[in-house]
Amino acid sequence: MRILGIDPGYAIVGFGVLEAQGAQVRLVRCGAINTPAGVPMPQRLVQIQEDLETLIHQFSPEAMAIEELFFNTNVTTGIGVAQARGVILMTAAKLGVAVYEYTPSQVKQAVVGYGKAEKRQVMDMTRRLLHLAAVPKPDDAADAVAIALCHARSHTSRLLRG
Amino acid sequence: MRILGIDPGYAIVGFGVLEAQGAQVRLVRCGAINTPAGVPMPQRLVQIQEDLETLIHQFSPEAMAIEELFFNTNVTTGIGVAQARGVILMTAAKLGVAVYEYTPSQVKQAVVGYGKAEKRQVMDMTRRLLHLAAVPKPDDAADAVAIALCHARSHTSRLLRG
Repeated sequence: MRILGIDPGYAIVGFGVLEAQGAQVRLVRCGAINTPAGVPMPQRLVQIQEDLETLIHQFSPEAMAIEELFFNTNVTTGIGVAQARGVILMTAAKLGVAVYEYTPSQVKQAVVGYGKAEKRQVMDMTRRLLHLAAVPKPDDAADAVAIALCHARSHTSRLLRG
Repeated sequence: MRILGIDPGYAIVGFGVLEAQGAQVRLVRCGAINTPAGVPMPQRLVQIQEDLETLIHQFSPEAMAIEELFFNTNVTTGIGVAQARGVILMTAAKLGVAVYEYTPSQVKQAVVGYGKAEKRQVMDMTRRLLHLAAVPKPDDAADAVAIALCHARSHTSRLLRG
């Protein structure tokens, strides 16, 4: 199963593509879509839509995994992130990619085995489970890989349990 | 000039199409895109994208006017609205429609002449300025017409001043 993990944003969208076969999970590609700060928001959203479409055509994922959005301190940034997330959800659905949402604590539970793990522990376990020499860069890509890994492991658990 | 006003949402997107020639402004069409509550969010966003694309092809607006988003009490609803708004901005930009944002007080100022006007006053002035028998229904359509009218009148003012 090919899984696309996404860390949404309007300036940087992290992505991570995993190939999962049972308990075997391999990193195929990760990186980030960057949109320039000087460009008006509608055009930044067009770039995110087009780059994500290209990624989906290139890697043909069956599933997209993305974190549920919570707003805390910076509501203005939050509006921008939610706008980008809407474009991302729409693009996935339009291209027939099933979308799965996870809370931060579900990601921690699935990757580290502890729902209140530190971000550093999530990154370290992501690296170890995928046999990587280093944690992916930038952070947005690493977060995207972690959520894809969460989906791979949740899916395995569900299959095993089922 | 053809103007498309939008009141964003994920359950209901209000729209209003105006034709403005100098100080003459005429309502061409208004209504709402409705998405069913039982459908997953990514599919609702696809429907908004496709219906908006159809509207833009049908009415060929040169400008889209939309309110700036502010979050107050209901942050969860706010995330959904912001996601839909992202899809709306992206769709307009992709089809070459220029996007203009206005604050609620700019809309009130442009339509009523007073930035702290009541919603009821905005609705009544919208009806009178467009020579309508009644305020458009649903409320989302009326709000969309008001913001399109705001753009028509702001644009006129700018042209007259310039």
